[in-house]
This record gives sequence, C-alpha cells and structure tokens, in this order.
Amino acid sequence: MIVVTGRVHVAPENRERFSAVATQMCSSSRDEHGCRGYRVYADLEQDDRYVFVEEWDDDEALQRHFGEPHTATFMQSLLPLLAGPADVLFHTISSSRRLDPERGLVPVD
Amino acid sequence: MIVVTGRVHVAPENRERFSAVATQMCSSSRDEHGCRGYRVYADLEQDDRYVFVEEWDDDEALQRHFGEPHTATFMQSLLPLLAGPADVLFHTISSSRRLDPERGLVPVD
Repeated sequence: MIVVTGRVHVAPENRERFSAVATQMCSSSRDEHGCRGYRVYADLEQDDRYVFVEEWDDDEALQRHFGEPHTATFMQSLLPLLAGPADVLFHTISSSRRLDPERGLVPVD
Repeated sequence: MIVVTGRVHVAPENRERFSAVATQMCSSSRDEHGCRGYRVYADLEQDDRYVFVEEWDDDEALQRHFGEPHTATFMQSLLPLLAGPADVLFHTISSSRRLDPERGLVPVD
C-alpha cells in the first residue's frame, strides 16, 4: 500500500475556494479503482494549513490516478490558491498495525 | 520511519474540549526524541471527524512515546470525548518519495 500525506498552505483569501476544490477532488478520487481513502483536513493549530491523507493499493493505482482528467484539473485549480509550495510525500508501506484497545498493536492483513 | 494515522469521531458537545486536549498532546509529543511530526486535523467533509498524523523515527521512539506520562494522560482524557472507537493505524515505511514540481516523484533519503 502507499500512503500519501500532502500538506498545503492556502492563502487566507482562498479558503472557501480551496475547500470546494479539495473536497471535490476527494470525492472524485475515492471513486477510483485502487483508492482506499482520500480525505482533506484542516490543521487545528495552524490557520490555513491542510493535509490530504490518501491510501492507494499500489503504484499502479497511483500512476493511473496521476493520469486522470480530474487530477489535472485539480492541480491547475489548486496551485493558484496556495501561499507556498506543497509538501507531498508518498510512503510505500511494508507492514501495518492497528491499535486494539485490549491487545495493543496487532498486524493488519 | 513509522507513519501513524489516528482517526477519531468526537461527540459534538465535546468539540472544544477535544481541541484543547488534542493540541496539547501534539505539542508535548513533538518535543519527544524521535518524533518527526505530530499534528491533528479536522475533516473538511465530515463534522466532528479528525485525524492525527504522526511521524516517528522507528519503533523504539514509538514505544518510548507509549510510556510517556503525557500519553497516558491523553488517552484517559480522549476516550470519554469520542462518539465511537478510534481507528489508529501504524504504517512501517520501506521507502518514501516526494513530489517535485519539475522532476515528478523523487526518492527521499
């Protein structure tokens, strides 16, 4: 699996537009084959800072995502709204564990 | 590196208390040795849903974090504020790439 954290700093005057563009992108991406999750969140400590958290089955799904028309539209819409460069990391996962309230960290299949 | 995504659903009446408890936990955790990042974010699409995004050097740092007094205090404070069970995943990273605007995906050391 690949986990993506995409951090962005939005110019304050673009907050509403960012929210519309970002949530549309989330919805479109979640419909893609190989997408396990795609959501956007606002930082509670820093105004106008956001993170996209995405989960993809594998690199093939991710590359397909890059080729989708809605991804190109999103990138074009997003960039003018930002106050600085985005920081987007793609982590390839070797194993995952889940916190179980009774058993502690347990492996995830 | 280990990347943690901790998703929680907070009862609406506990929003303010959650924000105080969660941001205090972020600040304390970021001061820990081996913590590369620890932030909390609010879902833009779903009210009262939040995600903690954490980055730890390795399992040793994570285990030390579990043993910190502020972690125990946080867990005790957090649980009564939730509307359902938390979903906390610990991903062990085998490699990471960064999106470079000009070069595409490039390896991160």
